[in-house]
Amino acid sequence: MKKVAVIMGSDSDLPSVKGAISRLIKFGVPYEVHVFSAHRTPAAAEKFASSAADNGFGVIIAAAGKAAHLAGVLAAYTVLPVIGLPIKSSFMDGLDSLLSMVQMPTGIPVATVGVGAADNAGILAVQLLALEDDGLREKLYAFKRQMADEVLEKDRKMQLEVFE
Amino acid sequence: MKKVAVIMGSDSDLPSVKGAISRLIKFGVPYEVHVFSAHRTPAAAEKFASSAADNGFGVIIAAAGKAAHLAGVLAAYTVLPVIGLPIKSSFMDGLDSLLSMVQMPTGIPVATVGVGAADNAGILAVQLLALEDDGLREKLYAFKRQMADEVLEKDRKMQLEVFE
Amino acid sequence: MKKVAVIMGSDSDLPSVKGAISRLIKFGVPYEVHVFSAHRTPAAAEKFASSAADNGFGVIIAAAGKAAHLAGVLAAYTVLPVIGLPIKSSFMDGLDSLLSMVQMPTGIPVATVGVGAADNAGILAVQLLALEDDGLREKLYAFKRQMADEVLEKDRKMQLEVFE
Amino acid sequence: MKKVAVIMGSDSDLPSVKGAISRLIKFGVPYEVHVFSAHRTPAAAEKFASSAADNGFGVIIAAAGKAAHLAGVLAAYTVLPVIGLPIKSSFMDGLDSLLSMVQMPTGIPVATVGVGAADNAGILAVQLLALEDDGLREKLYAFKRQMADEVLEKDRKMQLEVFE
Amino acid sequence: MKKVAVIMGSDSDLPSVKGAISRLIKFGVPYEVHVFSAHRTPAAAEKFASSAADNGFGVIIAAAGKAAHLAGVLAAYTVLPVIGLPIKSSFMDGLDSLLSMVQMPTGIPVATVGVGAADNAGILAVQLLALEDDGLREKLYAFKRQMADEVLEKDRKMQLEVFE
Amino acid sequence: MKKVAVIMGSDSDLPSVKGAISRLIKFGVPYEVHVFSAHRTPAAAEKFASSAADNGFGVIIAAAGKAAHLAGVLAAYTVLPVIGLPIKSSFMDGLDSLLSMVQMPTGIPVATVGVGAADNAGILAVQLLALEDDGLREKLYAFKRQMADEVLEKDRKMQLEVFE
Amino acid sequence: MKKVAVIMGSDSDLPSVKGAISRLIKFGVPYEVHVFSAHRTPAAAEKFASSAADNGFGVIIAAAGKAAHLAGVLAAYTVLPVIGLPIKSSFMDGLDSLLSMVQMPTGIPVATVGVGAADNAGILAVQLLALEDDGLREKLYAFKRQMADEVLEKDRKMQLEVFE
Amino acid sequence: MKKVAVIMGSDSDLPSVKGAISRLIKFGVPYEVHVFSAHRTPAAAEKFASSAADNGFGVIIAAAGKAAHLAGVLAAYTVLPVIGLPIKSSFMDGLDSLLSMVQMPTGIPVATVGVGAADNAGILAVQLLALEDDGLREKLYAFKRQMADEVLEKDRKMQLEVFE
Repeated sequence: MKKVAVIMGSDSDLPSVKGAISRLIKFGVPYEVHVFSAHRTPAAAEKFASSAADNGFGVIIAAAGKAAHLAGVLAAYTVLPVIGLPIKSSFMDGLDSLLSMVQMPTGIPVATVGVGAADNAGILAVQLLALEDDGLREKLYAFKRQMADEVLEKDRKMQLEVFE
Repeated sequence: MKKVAVIMGSDSDLPSVKGAISRLIKFGVPYEVHVFSAHRTPAAAEKFASSAADNGFGVIIAAAGKAAHLAGVLAAYTVLPVIGLPIKSSFMDGLDSLLSMVQMPTGIPVATVGVGAADNAGILAVQLLALEDDGLREKLYAFKRQMADEVLEKDRKMQLEVFE
Repeated sequence: MKKVAVIMGSDSDLPSVKGAISRLIKFGVPYEVHVFSAHRTPAAAEKFASSAADNGFGVIIAAAGKAAHLAGVLAAYTVLPVIGLPIKSSFMDGLDSLLSMVQMPTGIPVATVGVGAADNAGILAVQLLALEDDGLREKLYAFKRQMADEVLEKDRKMQLEVFE
Repeated sequence: MKKVAVIMGSDSDLPSVKGAISRLIKFGVPYEVHVFSAHRTPAAAEKFASSAADNGFGVIIAAAGKAAHLAGVLAAYTVLPVIGLPIKSSFMDGLDSLLSMVQMPTGIPVATVGVGAADNAGILAVQLLALEDDGLREKLYAFKRQMADEVLEKDRKMQLEVFE
Repeated sequence: MKKVAVIMGSDSDLPSVKGAISRLIKFGVPYEVHVFSAHRTPAAAEKFASSAADNGFGVIIAAAGKAAHLAGVLAAYTVLPVIGLPIKSSFMDGLDSLLSMVQMPTGIPVATVGVGAADNAGILAVQLLALEDDGLREKLYAFKRQMADEVLEKDRKMQLEVFE
Repeated sequence: MKKVAVIMGSDSDLPSVKGAISRLIKFGVPYEVHVFSAHRTPAAAEKFASSAADNGFGVIIAAAGKAAHLAGVLAAYTVLPVIGLPIKSSFMDGLDSLLSMVQMPTGIPVATVGVGAADNAGILAVQLLALEDDGLREKLYAFKRQMADEVLEKDRKMQLEVFE
Repeated sequence: MKKVAVIMGSDSDLPSVKGAISRLIKFGVPYEVHVFSAHRTPAAAEKFASSAADNGFGVIIAAAGKAAHLAGVLAAYTVLPVIGLPIKSSFMDGLDSLLSMVQMPTGIPVATVGVGAADNAGILAVQLLALEDDGLREKLYAFKRQMADEVLEKDRKMQLEVFE
Repeated sequence: MKKVAVIMGSDSDLPSVKGAISRLIKFGVPYEVHVFSAHRTPAAAEKFASSAADNGFGVIIAAAGKAAHLAGVLAAYTVLPVIGLPIKSSFMDGLDSLLSMVQMPTGIPVATVGVGAADNAGILAVQLLALEDDGLREKLYAFKRQMADEVLEKDRKMQLEVFE
């Protein structure tokens, strides 16, 4: 199976991406976690992205905040799908992160998930790899059923609640 | 090759999604175009999404504006990756469309591209299908080189420009 | 008297809807509280909304946050009035929730109240049911008078305040 | 059948509320159209709202823009449901209108529809009156089916479209 | 000397207006503090505003939050200048309060100060009363000089600061 | 009677302030119109503001757009009330102009009217001068009655309208 | 004298940067204009920025829109000051461009000017080069005096204007 | 070497500018720290800015919040480059500060850095002074290398992390 690269701009972003990693682990998808900065280590980011396809990666998750260029910069060097995970910044709850990621110019898309939506970045990566992996797809269906069951169970419990 | 579904909420959205279709055609990717509304034809949307994987689709592009629920509603019924294309609305240039698409709850990601970025929605769909299709990947590399060549050519021409 | 359905997307939203339930209780309006998710249990949401009118409901209150599709999805399946209660999210204080609810396409309105305005969602539901219920209307007038009296009492007390 | 009052702050707002009136006509709901201003004719607004219930009105639609106080001011004087229709202003496409209407204090809800969503204001008014009117409800179901049929027809026509 | 009325929509707003009262006290300007709600006690608000000029008031400060109609509603009933003090709400730091106050329709201006700027509301009221009161104007000049002296003193102290 | 100064940052702003001048003329209030820039002619702005009170001015209206410092800079040099008129800019309809004017620091208030609300700037100036001028106050009451009459007349005409 | 590089992401941005070029010409500052894209020609952008200092450049002006990474990407490869010129995009008047440029992470600043403020980008570049060039500084002082004179002349002409 | 002036509007802003001072110290750049207010001490601000170039300053950093006029007011009196540091305010995380600084009119640019980006203000000042100082430029290259090394080291350490 192809690997998922989880790239963050700083190790301080780790709490903001852990949700993605947890999902990859739960689905049994191989991954690597890296710290590369679009601005501080542009050469390392370029090198990683340029060779990612050849190195067995299928999807790249890039997490960044503020003027969040990381996803776009990686996408400039690869044709692998790049999932952009905007990190909640201290400015307007990450509106800067979101717009810096999602508003990419024609030709270089970034598949952006919600602000701080690390879990969804991981799940989306699994969905991409599942395109050609029936086992993984089955796991996704099971996951969907489990989510539904949990909600229905919560609904049942809610009926026991006494309000006043 | 798997097909790409291009779904829009109204046929009046066609100009806003044509860029995606053009890209799919240029890359030789099979596609279908549909008009389904999350709110007016929820049953049709559900039916389509539920059976999309079995019907040979690999990716769904969903274009919608304002309270743009279409992508999320389709994603609720499938584990295929859903690309959300927020259409520029008459309210804050589509901020409503963007937020309604990208801010999905945990478990149901939508791979969102920029507001009005139809071309990028198409290219992203190609990138997803290219995950297991070396021919398509080669076309993407060629496309990337062509984009670069065009920019460099423009830079050369810019040197002939006379400013005053 | 017809019942009011109070639907939330997750049981963790309960604190955000309690104000609505309290108001319904205070006005003596029958209600049911449910947990249904537009994205995780679309089938359950559909089933509930489709049969709500037949099951004795007169109004549906739907509370959701972020890409808040719940109200719109329920409204797609019923002609009962759906009151949208946007929950304060962690992104721009719920601007995403608000826009995802209020900006509905033509034909499927959602009667939206303020972000986090659970009490007002409940009171609005009472106002709707009072359209054909004179007793309920009298209670609403009494409630209005009581609110006024409380403000006037506060104004009287304010005159005793000593500032410096 | 109870009447719907359609109130606007200025006769120049007429184009922005016509959609609501058209819907009321189409559903055969009696209505009156008035020009009252929360700020220029507060007494007339008060008088109208205070006696609206006694004068046979069941619902009030209030359309206003910018610092759109009209809906709230009417709601202060009646317990009838007030539907707020924020008119698109020249400032941020009516964000001012929307927030001035939807963010009402506890106790005085305004059932707000989308910015410029006149049709939805009318349809919502019909939904409220249909709470106790089975004939009107049937018309709403027929309207819903018609909307669905139109979308499905558009989907069929879309299949004949040739893209390139 | 004419009095300044300080009106708030709820006694819970008192902390948000105290700065205005303090300034009035410091400048020796007579004032009254009232709790009136545009929506809960519209009659009391109307009565107060209609007779404010006759009752010796020269300026009205109205503090409110969210859909902050209070200032506009008071201004509808008087030709006295109304100073709008937008209270910081829980939604986008009071953007709703600010827009609901400042974006008044032609003919009914509200002199709006910054979000939460209670002191400035008080000082502006003093400036208005000083238009025809030379003693008050002298106090304002003295206040301006004192502010300048304090800043210059801080600048002097800053030179003693040791950074590293 | 004291004069009103109408200051704009550039003569190209004239269309944006004409409404204020018209109102001053209609109310018979003496005025002067000036072009001073906070950034291009800071010395002229300072000189004007410093001596405005001595030169017979009672109120200053300052119109500016974008990073609209003009009102604040004038207010720094005078204790006369300064009315800030934010001009609609090409960025978010003048949100920059509005925030640059209204969010003044403690001690230096600017009485801000709506974005582009030139008429209201003029009317507010009249209200300030009317504080000690009974004749002017009577004119304001007459203006208020006239506005009301016009709305009521429009309401009467609206009853003749035929909708379909 | 060192040269100024004016870089844009696409030749279609030329109208948006011409103001900068005009200013450089007027001040007699040598410049080069280039088309490089952060995403389409990352290698060319890198090469240019890495060698800009050695190639006689003193300042880089980077103009870009939407997810405007160009300035940041260039700044990653040089220690020359990079002036960011956010181009007005079709989304919220370039709020995306502005935030993508100005919100850079610690260590890699971009000196950002206003949205669409091409002239100011050019003037700022001149100011930087004038740091060690007394002749250029004199020209800047003359420019400042000329701006002031033009405003004062406009003020004089304004006095001849007849309003009604 | 020329000095950098670090100006803040109030001594309470010191924590918000310390990052800039630290950077200047680390790079061995001489500086002065001052408290001047655009609105409270306009004369002192004018005097400082007018004579800054003659007093050995090469760059001015101006930090301010809310209606942040300080940078623009200083820029009005000097042709030295003025770096604007928008301080995070209590309103929309400093959107007011940012727009009040960056949206300057033509002719008077302010080189704006990110909201709260004190370190970047300092580093940008160093970059400007390094234009003609090879030693300083070398330090900037070393700083860039050190940042890169730190990121690469963090990447290495990240490989030892165990996720689950």
